Amino acid sequence: MLTLDFHPTGRHFLQIPGPSPVPDRILRAMSLPTIDHRGPEFAALGLQVLKGLAQIFKTRHPVIIYPASGTGAWEAALANVLSPGDHVLMYETGHFASLWNKMATRLGVKAEFLGLPGIEGWRRGVQADMIEERLKADTQHTIKAVCVVHNETSTGVTSNIVSVRKAIDAARHPALLMVDTISGLASADYRHDEWGVDVTISGSQKGLMLPPGISFNALSPKAIEASRTAKLPKAFWAWDEMIETNRSGYFPYTPNTNLLYGLAEACDMLLAPEHGGLEAVFARHARWGEGVRSAVKAWGLQIQCADPAVYSPVLTGVMMPEGVDADAVRKIIYDRFVSSWPA
Amino acid sequence: MLTLDFHPTGRHFLQIPGPSPVPDRILRAMSLPTIDHRGPEFAALGLQVLKGLAQIFKTRHPVIIYPASGTGAWEAALANVLSPGDHVLMYETGHFASLWNKMATRLGVKAEFLGLPGIEGWRRGVQADMIEERLKADTQHTIKAVCVVHNETSTGVTSNIVSVRKAIDAARHPALLMVDTISGLASADYRHDEWGVDVTISGSQKGLMLPPGISFNALSPKAIEASRTAKLPKAFWAWDEMIETNRSGYFPYTPNTNLLYGLAEACDMLLAPEHGGLEAVFARHARWGEGVRSAVKAWGLQIQCADPAVYSPVLTGVMMPEGVDADAVRKIIYDRFVSSWPA
Amino acid sequence: MLTLDFHPTGRHFLQIPGPSPVPDRILRAMSLPTIDHRGPEFAALGLQVLKGLAQIFKTRHPVIIYPASGTGAWEAALANVLSPGDHVLMYETGHFASLWNKMATRLGVKAEFLGLPGIEGWRRGVQADMIEERLKADTQHTIKAVCVVHNETSTGVTSNIVSVRKAIDAARHPALLMVDTISGLASADYRHDEWGVDVTISGSQKGLMLPPGISFNALSPKAIEASRTAKLPKAFWAWDEMIETNRSGYFPYTPNTNLLYGLAEACDMLLAPEHGGLEAVFARHARWGEGVRSAVKAWGLQIQCADPAVYSPVLTGVMMPEGVDADAVRKIIYDRFVSSWPA
Amino acid sequence: MLTLDFHPTGRHFLQIPGPSPVPDRILRAMSLPTIDHRGPEFAALGLQVLKGLAQIFKTRHPVIIYPASGTGAWEAALANVLSPGDHVLMYETGHFASLWNKMATRLGVKAEFLGLPGIEGWRRGVQADMIEERLKADTQHTIKAVCVVHNETSTGVTSNIVSVRKAIDAARHPALLMVDTISGLASADYRHDEWGVDVTISGSQKGLMLPPGISFNALSPKAIEASRTAKLPKAFWAWDEMIETNRSGYFPYTPNTNLLYGLAEACDMLLAPEHGGLEAVFARHARWGEGVRSAVKAWGLQIQCADPAVYSPVLTGVMMPEGVDADAVRKIIYDRFVSSWPA
Repeated sequence: MLTLDFHPTGRHFLQIPGPSPVPDRILRAMSLPTIDHRGPEFAALGLQVLKGLAQIFKTRHPVIIYPASGTGAWEAALANVLSPGDHVLMYETGHFASLWNKMATRLGVKAEFLGLPGIEGWRRGVQADMIEERLKADTQHTIKAVCVVHNETSTGVTSNIVSVRKAIDAARHPALLMVDTISGLASADYRHDEWGVDVTISGSQKGLMLPPGISFNALSPKAIEASRTAKLPKAFWAWDEMIETNRSGYFPYTPNTNLLYGLAEACDMLLAPEHGGLEAVFARHARWGEGVRSAVKAWGLQIQCADPAVYSPVLTGVMMPEGVDADAVRKIIYDRFVSSWPA
Repeated sequence: MLTLDFHPTGRHFLQIPGPSPVPDRILRAMSLPTIDHRGPEFAALGLQVLKGLAQIFKTRHPVIIYPASGTGAWEAALANVLSPGDHVLMYETGHFASLWNKMATRLGVKAEFLGLPGIEGWRRGVQADMIEERLKADTQHTIKAVCVVHNETSTGVTSNIVSVRKAIDAARHPALLMVDTISGLASADYRHDEWGVDVTISGSQKGLMLPPGISFNALSPKAIEASRTAKLPKAFWAWDEMIETNRSGYFPYTPNTNLLYGLAEACDMLLAPEHGGLEAVFARHARWGEGVRSAVKAWGLQIQCADPAVYSPVLTGVMMPEGVDADAVRKIIYDRFVSSWPA
Repeated sequence: MLTLDFHPTGRHFLQIPGPSPVPDRILRAMSLPTIDHRGPEFAALGLQVLKGLAQIFKTRHPVIIYPASGTGAWEAALANVLSPGDHVLMYETGHFASLWNKMATRLGVKAEFLGLPGIEGWRRGVQADMIEERLKADTQHTIKAVCVVHNETSTGVTSNIVSVRKAIDAARHPALLMVDTISGLASADYRHDEWGVDVTISGSQKGLMLPPGISFNALSPKAIEASRTAKLPKAFWAWDEMIETNRSGYFPYTPNTNLLYGLAEACDMLLAPEHGGLEAVFARHARWGEGVRSAVKAWGLQIQCADPAVYSPVLTGVMMPEGVDADAVRKIIYDRFVSSWPA
Repeated sequence: MLTLDFHPTGRHFLQIPGPSPVPDRILRAMSLPTIDHRGPEFAALGLQVLKGLAQIFKTRHPVIIYPASGTGAWEAALANVLSPGDHVLMYETGHFASLWNKMATRLGVKAEFLGLPGIEGWRRGVQADMIEERLKADTQHTIKAVCVVHNETSTGVTSNIVSVRKAIDAARHPALLMVDTISGLASADYRHDEWGVDVTISGSQKGLMLPPGISFNALSPKAIEASRTAKLPKAFWAWDEMIETNRSGYFPYTPNTNLLYGLAEACDMLLAPEHGGLEAVFARHARWGEGVRSAVKAWGLQIQCADPAVYSPVLTGVMMPEGVDADAVRKIIYDRFVSSWPA
């Protein structure tokens, strides 16, 4: 029988940027028996989670739920709006931006990678002026999309998406704006419609407090329009049948039912007016993030993010001093606080 | 808080071909807290489920686990071995074979659809002689793959895969053999290596007794070889990084951790020597299938599958007599046995 | 870590007269975190279960919930209304009536044991005329209580409680009527007030579908009156503080909180109007009991209960033919249907 | 369906001296299906928990498990060794000692209540010299038992049991020593055999981390001897049949099966050598208790326990300054940390 190395206190102890600790309420909801995804009970569940997600993404347009983990949602965003050989502009904020760039290249897209030189690129958010300048130079409008990461899990930097939107507008460029907020959604302020994002990519195992396994594309009408003529092959990731079938609460193919149970519960928790809704969630993260940074500074350590304006409220990267081995530090933390009685 | 319309007996009552009823043991395993998929505990879990799957698919070659539902595994099989415009031969056994055919076309593959004319096609298994004949006619070997469904959920027909292998061999044709056994695996006899299958596609929510959300590709060396030159764009579905990373029990991107808990439990249940292992599972399904068919015949009804040699041991399709509305029958079943006290 | 020898199907397989199979809904409810039994949430729970129990016992008078298994409720019934040396009349219907008789003797009560001679006593229900005759002979009214078992788990006989009430009334005798319906409540028709019962004893692990651990005394005003002067020592079992404290939903000492969660769920299931309430529960048991008896007769076996008027709707005792070892039969059942794949 | 007012974080938030927070591991174990308490699986469970309890009580003699909450174990201890009118000496350490005293009186025992005058009695542990003096004065040995509370939940005082044993020995008095360690067991050092205790009373919902519903009597040979002639009526609480039946892992009447699942898990957690066993548990409580007291002092508040030698390692009582309403303080704590987002 499957066992798990529970912490001696009888709780599982996981305190990393993701997967986040999954609340008991959600684990309990996920252990309800699997229902028929073609039956009437399911439609009610489908409509419920789609409505909740729209509130969380702050959009009036479709949100696609993939029964696949976050990497799939990256691919879906690219595959639905691009054609083989298309040119996209991506911005290097850290490890995850680099992985997305690598994927775009693998899919046959010409992925230009912009960024500050050297280590500075991984210590500051997206430099919107660099994007504006590059787009202005693209007088033929060969660039089809601008791709940025909102909250970089590898560095603890939350880029300013509004500034990127303004840069595109200032350049009077028709490129789509695509934003990965896998680790930012439901933890840091995010507004799909108001900020003019065309495709937002997110996943389940961070701010939504779920296990991994489902991921999302929030769309704009302009993105949907672009998907009608894009030529990259797609079936599982295709938006068209999803949008159509979702109208009645169903999915064109088998959904991830038990994770949707968890998602319904997570939406209830995040949006509950009696707890203050998303604003209270953001305020709490902001406050705790400030506390963590104060502690790091008091210990005499340096924060990875070099620009206070873009400190992530969700996670704080800490730079190890010269001569200190990061792996050794992690091992000490693990031994003292995870694997043994905190005596 | 999420509720579910439990049967009055306090159990959820679901008796359809899939999603199958999920045993308590598996729901309990899935409700364990989510662990870090980069930590040491995870590697042990990963190796354990990969080993179990190899025994269930009966293969010594890699089995890929996608954190995505079954439709994704269909796409993965095609995307890894084919290039745009490639010609594949598919066989029409029912609704699911048709959906796969539609997907292949959508992905830019030339998908030829073979089958018996009219209703007969949906009442009999794959006619291997038709495949042999067609392949013999393909003297240029433009056909890259032969795609068949092992157990057709829409009809209750389990096709003879050995006969298809023999047909390809008799035609001395190099096409890959790709088999969908989403609803057959772990219920009906299946032997990836011995039967010479190149790619086997399966999913979690049928014989494996899990909720939907993970799916599989079992590979042959020949399929892996083909994937090295295939040109359809792929990243999430790509086998290469999966095979590489799986060696140490990890995944190249975020896996569906809690469903893997359930998979580990399912492997334990299916393979337990004290319960007789897979042979006992198959024998049980065969016996129960025979019982169901006896009952259907005793009621004077006709079985959808017209060839006793390919009766499915997993599910039995029943034809409604003239003038009887199938939806009305389903409603009676639902009202009497699912939604009310069985008084 | 605790494991349990699950049935190969992944369900625990228990089909005995009690503990009954506990529905998933109830096990889930019981696994909610323990709340403070002095906090406001608890009072709501307490009032809810007390109200539900009143409907199940069909009484307007207090029902006491003991955080103790059924044997405790037997002792409580005796200790609250009797004084050392008091005389009670008990009726022998089977093994459990005998255990209760033994307990009364142990507590220092003079327990007279009435019944039909030989095996006949264990094959027929309470003979009310014998009770009437005995009470008429007790012209000094030394008998303080008449104690009978409603549904004898050891024999499958459900005695007629109304006839016992009539016998006491016909004898114009002031004795209290005390009835054990541990295995009858919520399965067979039972009416505490209408039938004029003074103390009804019941438990959690039969018709209420809970694990063992809580038990009940339903009272009449006459029983409460008797408890004011009864002299057997009692503290844990004392009704007075319970009645007083229960008014606000609390208990005088620590209750069995997680079993009360299960009880709340059980009341919901049993009383749900959309499922027909208790009447539907009784009808279902009656129908299934009739089916079981038909099968037993068709197999050529004899039913333990010799009087069809008092067949239990809950369980059927079957007599083994000469030369057949009951333990060997039980072992066959266990091996074929509980411990192995039902191949 | 039963719901529970979960904390906004998705965990139930309960931080009181008892019921203690129940670890997930234990709630999960308790939600396993109920097994037959007469079947072979149960015997293994029974022997396992009895062995674990012996290690926790540190005794080689029988430990009785009652399917009843703690108040029952108090009654059991008295009822098994005393006769009506017997004289016992009890010591007033606080609210729970007073409740036990009240119960003894109610059961018909002459319960003498010793203690320091005024508020001092509730701020200091048992004064062994007072007991010694009183016993010496009892030259006729009419006192049958000395009853003390080890860890007083109402005050946060852990009395010195060794000193009480020495007092009885110094007085050369044959009285039994009976100790309530309901809230001390498995949190504070306790040694039934080594300390010469005759009956130890404990319960499930404190250091054992279980929900309420089971309780214990640990015995000495001298206590068992006394129970053979004690005259208080008892059946449910009787030790004799328990000791006899427990030998094979069973119980004379229905046990509280699902709580025993939890108990097995709790024993595993508390005794696990890889976590340091009970010594590590005690050290942890001692360290955290010291931390709490340091904080209370730093805030300028006074600790209820006036004698540092008997500070409880488990809980700390804090005295409210003049003019501060304790209920108002509790409400602030509840509102800020239990019922709302900790923003």
